[in-house]
Amino acid sequence: MVRRPEKPLEFRRIERFLAPLASRLPGACGLKDDAAALTVTQGQELIVTTDTIVATVHFMGDEPAGDIAAKLLRVSLSDLASMGAKPLCYTLNLALSAGTPDDWLEAFCAGLAAEQERFAIALAGGDTVATPGPMTLTCTMFGETPSGMALRRNRAVAGETVYVSGTIGDGALGLLAVRGEVTLADAALQQSLVECYRRPEPRVVLGQGLVGLASAAVDISDGLVGDLAHVADASGVQITIMLESVPLSQAASEALQADPELLATVLTGGDDYEIAFTAPEPNQGQIMATARAAGLDISPIGRVEAGSGVQVIASDGRPLDLDHLGYSHG
Amino acid sequence: MVRRPEKPLEFRRIERFLAPLASRLPGACGLKDDAAALTVTQGQELIVTTDTIVATVHFMGDEPAGDIAAKLLRVSLSDLASMGAKPLCYTLNLALSAGTPDDWLEAFCAGLAAEQERFAIALAGGDTVATPGPMTLTCTMFGETPSGMALRRNRAVAGETVYVSGTIGDGALGLLAVRGEVTLADAALQQSLVECYRRPEPRVVLGQGLVGLASAAVDISDGLVGDLAHVADASGVQITIMLESVPLSQAASEALQADPELLATVLTGGDDYEIAFTAPEPNQGQIMATARAAGLDISPIGRVEAGSGVQVIASDGRPLDLDHLGYSHG
Repeated sequence: MVRRPEKPLEFRRIERFLAPLASRLPGACGLKDDAAALTVTQGQELIVTTDTIVATVHFMGDEPAGDIAAKLLRVSLSDLASMGAKPLCYTLNLALSAGTPDDWLEAFCAGLAAEQERFAIALAGGDTVATPGPMTLTCTMFGETPSGMALRRNRAVAGETVYVSGTIGDGALGLLAVRGEVTLADAALQQSLVECYRRPEPRVVLGQGLVGLASAAVDISDGLVGDLAHVADASGVQITIMLESVPLSQAASEALQADPELLATVLTGGDDYEIAFTAPEPNQGQIMATARAAGLDISPIGRVEAGSGVQVIASDGRPLDLDHLGYSHG
Repeated sequence: MVRRPEKPLEFRRIERFLAPLASRLPGACGLKDDAAALTVTQGQELIVTTDTIVATVHFMGDEPAGDIAAKLLRVSLSDLASMGAKPLCYTLNLALSAGTPDDWLEAFCAGLAAEQERFAIALAGGDTVATPGPMTLTCTMFGETPSGMALRRNRAVAGETVYVSGTIGDGALGLLAVRGEVTLADAALQQSLVECYRRPEPRVVLGQGLVGLASAAVDISDGLVGDLAHVADASGVQITIMLESVPLSQAASEALQADPELLATVLTGGDDYEIAFTAPEPNQGQIMATARAAGLDISPIGRVEAGSGVQVIASDGRPLDLDHLGYSHG
């Protein structure tokens, strides 16, 4: 590729802002070589996930740089969590506008550093380029699981219980709160929704604890119904959810009370980054103990059955009309 | 992230065009899970490199889709080659304009398939998103080397010989040929330059053969002088190149004869994707045998000495003024 004009700036920025993030990973060679070397623990396999976010499409672009950094990494960490993997390191591809100031990159990297500290990960490598278009950021995240033990979507079995961690709907309601389309009377609750959207909490400890206990797992990025539909499709089963069992935060409950139409957002809006999983009945005790150890609530919300697709049963015993809720079968 | 509107299209395209590229890699799970699982051979370490290219910055955008696919993968394969790694698989992040037709994606994926066949690699995962900006493509390529044996930039030792594979300058002259700024009388030679630019040949077999023989290595993406300067800096040595020893193709020789000012392009223009490396004298016989086995010419072009930086000695015995040649020390 021909990228001479940007090279001097690129080298200076890599050395100043990005190389310190790689200092604890010897195989990253200070970001000064053609590639990074990753050592995988014997008996483990490497789990790899990658996400691209584009300003104005996946994020506004004017959020605090640290929030953008946190969300970029956490979305990928959530994918690792849903596979039961222990996070190790990541690579980063930054396509930045020519005018992006050093201040922005410094704040972005400070955000990355905080996430690295929190999740015990390090930068392994990457590429920094200029773009005439919107900022486009790619994170490729690496973790490891015992070989053959990664949690998959395609192993749900009829008769199993369906569980979900945390509460559902806060991320999607948080986006509406950011946009001013949802306003709760209680400012603290309002802010809690915004936080859920801006800094979702990847369930990395829980995910690792579920290895050997859960049969199938997925992280909820596209919405509870949509992601469970992936599990149902991949496993060749039907998943039935009891609406009353879906765990809601106080903020989500109040939002729903004020506007029952928001139920569609809660069930299909996405951005939860909780883990939904299935497991056989006898594992329930160990699962609850694992959740307690991770400091998390886990709720049984339904069952795996023979059939296909996802249905949500309302409190009157009748299935919700999901199409009517705006759920696309994509 | 909230990306519901594009999801149905994304899923359909992944299933139709991208999933077939992942069919030979069981850990890719048909691109239907949250992440891929990679098994690393015992005693090997994983080598990871990643590159982002932006239409109108790193490529025109209107090249044949297959050429874009080939260049995207080959640039990363060249990084692996310079580390001595055997290529395994790759992930792909495609940020495409909303209007990108299926035909384009089909041709792009046909190009990927041809490269996969040729280099024995497979698609492991990725992300496909829409962008209102220029097409932005990221490839993250994985390979393996025996643990601790990867070829690095920082191990050149004074007294060693500097070698380079193939010929130098064709890629950068090829870009000028594409732009109509270089025109050779012989149409076949002209076309050979364009081909070198569009489809560089990563030296993956040679790279693997140099493990244990070469001390330091780099692939020439930024230009012979610039990339050897990286080796000199990282190793704390000076590298002295004899201009007469730098191998040129017939096309490059004719271009230089017609316009001697093109010497700057040849030495500093980049896009060669040859491997430059250093090795102790006694390894020369084995190195030449390795090159023959790879079907490649290898040329000794200079020496590693005490000092710093890169100098190029002209046929009159005097060092070239590299600043005057337009070389930036970045």
